[in-house]
Amino acid sequence: MNNEIIRIGHGSGGRLSRELINDIFLRYFNNATLKQLNDAASLSVQKGRIAFTTDSYVIDPIFFPGGDIGQLAVSGTVNDLCVSGAIPKFLSAGFIIEEGFSLINLEKIVASMAREAKKAGVEIVTGDTKVVRRGQVDKIFINTSGIGIIPEDRFHLSEKLDPAPGDKIIITGTLGDHSIAILSAREKIPLDEIILSDAEPLTDLVNNVLRKPEEVLFMRDITRGGLATVLVEICENLKFGIEIKEADIPVFQSVKSVCELYGFDPLYLANEGKIVMIVKTGSEQRILDRIKSYDPGNRAAIIGEITIEHPSKVVIKSIIGGRRVVDMLSGEMLPRIC
Amino acid sequence: MNNEIIRIGHGSGGRLSRELINDIFLRYFNNATLKQLNDAASLSVQKGRIAFTTDSYVIDPIFFPGGDIGQLAVSGTVNDLCVSGAIPKFLSAGFIIEEGFSLINLEKIVASMAREAKKAGVEIVTGDTKVVRRGQVDKIFINTSGIGIIPEDRFHLSEKLDPAPGDKIIITGTLGDHSIAILSAREKIPLDEIILSDAEPLTDLVNNVLRKPEEVLFMRDITRGGLATVLVEICENLKFGIEIKEADIPVFQSVKSVCELYGFDPLYLANEGKIVMIVKTGSEQRILDRIKSYDPGNRAAIIGEITIEHPSKVVIKSIIGGRRVVDMLSGEMLPRIC
Repeated sequence: MNNEIIRIGHGSGGRLSRELINDIFLRYFNNATLKQLNDAASLSVQKGRIAFTTDSYVIDPIFFPGGDIGQLAVSGTVNDLCVSGAIPKFLSAGFIIEEGFSLINLEKIVASMAREAKKAGVEIVTGDTKVVRRGQVDKIFINTSGIGIIPEDRFHLSEKLDPAPGDKIIITGTLGDHSIAILSAREKIPLDEIILSDAEPLTDLVNNVLRKPEEVLFMRDITRGGLATVLVEICENLKFGIEIKEADIPVFQSVKSVCELYGFDPLYLANEGKIVMIVKTGSEQRILDRIKSYDPGNRAAIIGEITIEHPSKVVIKSIIGGRRVVDMLSGEMLPRIC
Repeated sequence: MNNEIIRIGHGSGGRLSRELINDIFLRYFNNATLKQLNDAASLSVQKGRIAFTTDSYVIDPIFFPGGDIGQLAVSGTVNDLCVSGAIPKFLSAGFIIEEGFSLINLEKIVASMAREAKKAGVEIVTGDTKVVRRGQVDKIFINTSGIGIIPEDRFHLSEKLDPAPGDKIIITGTLGDHSIAILSAREKIPLDEIILSDAEPLTDLVNNVLRKPEEVLFMRDITRGGLATVLVEICENLKFGIEIKEADIPVFQSVKSVCELYGFDPLYLANEGKIVMIVKTGSEQRILDRIKSYDPGNRAAIIGEITIEHPSKVVIKSIIGGRRVVDMLSGEMLPRIC
């Protein structure tokens, strides 16, 4: 029975830590590098540029419609690498676990991580586990850091953005699914149809889009702060403006309904499998077709463009025709969404 | 007043997150890569091998004699890179902070991280901040992941260990300082002399030792599980044994006294600035001199050697002459020691 929960000793660095590594981590994260169990993984790289990113995942609940914290911890970090133009290669995994946490649940989470890593084409090559007493952390937090290789023809994606008026804004799918999935699980909202999180590694979708990297000027995954915050951040440093059309922004009806109930705006909701891109005018239809050929991109849409008007400002044209300036998120809509 | 504590909005990805990044993180972690505030840092590397490591720091108390969680989070990860033969280059920093945490304390911690990073020759190039509600995390946890470059002549340090009988075991200083510093702070033990943590980045010391890398067969920092656990782990996969001499292992008298009081064995205590090495026989005095020429190494000692006897076992010769087999740590002596 004692073996079915996490004990303080599982984080000691001694015998129990070793058992946890052998029985769970190595069983699922099965690769030659991790197996060496060195304090640092030794990896081969080519001369050039690499992308390096980190994210801690503190989502609550840890199991939710469409995913779990493990799936999220892999796909979130993979997507940060993808949007910087990198091909994701290696992940680290740092676990902070509450004493008494179920080993069965830990195994489920680790299995999800292994499955998503395979899907994304990455290896989990190094890790760390800390265990703290009951009440000192809420169940389990996971940090993943990631390394990707940036192909030479994609270097511009991590450089200064320099779009021209008429360049188009594309999003790869519906807004708000992840946030509303978490909210409805947390608040037990009765829904006609279950809303699933969109958490998903987008390696294949991005690689397909970047077959002609020069057509794509910018990519970012739309996480905390939502589409509004990403666009405002971009726009602040531009000499042009951005205009988006509310009518063109895809949002599921069920998501809209929950938003109305809770007074949320989908523009500010976090997503975990959606990207916003700025692409050269003329290439937008071709790129849209490429995105749509992948399942997670089948509701992608062109939602706006770079404008000469209102420099450094994001303006949304509402369905009934009015225009208003969009600001970034202030405060927090939903804590522990990722 | 509101501005003096961490609020949920500081982890939202919106306006308050941006303020925190500008007012604290960018002020201290001031480098061209981080300033770009991309989701992933873009870094140049040469063809060859890199080391990649991760650690989460959950130490309690967060300020302790000789250091704080920020100093530890940098030096711990830097040292993991050093012992793999890498020259530490880039760190990520992932913060998980409890709502209500003092901004002044956060600033102190971030200032420590910046100072240690400078000392260690690394840049903090990417980061993430999550804020959770009161009671969902104990004050602050920090994950750092690190990337180092492994020079070609050091590749062997991350490969299979292959020592010969007579090769020597060296430790770079006294055992147990960090653990006993934390314990005495936590338990408010009255001491004649204050014991300071040994947390310290060992980049310079290791680079000095590795001027002739072929003389050094193995290095590991002696953290959780202590010297005993590291040696047992190494020895399990060897066809030879290891013998160490208790009389040659440096331990401060004040550390010994607290150990006796609490029934601890310094062999199992975690350190944060100590390394154990296996070096070729004949080179030990030269290497010892190199270690001792650096301040954190001034109590380094040759403590034992590889033996033909008792293959795969670590044996300690006690001060009074007896011999006993050393096992790895089972259970946990001091939770949240790092």
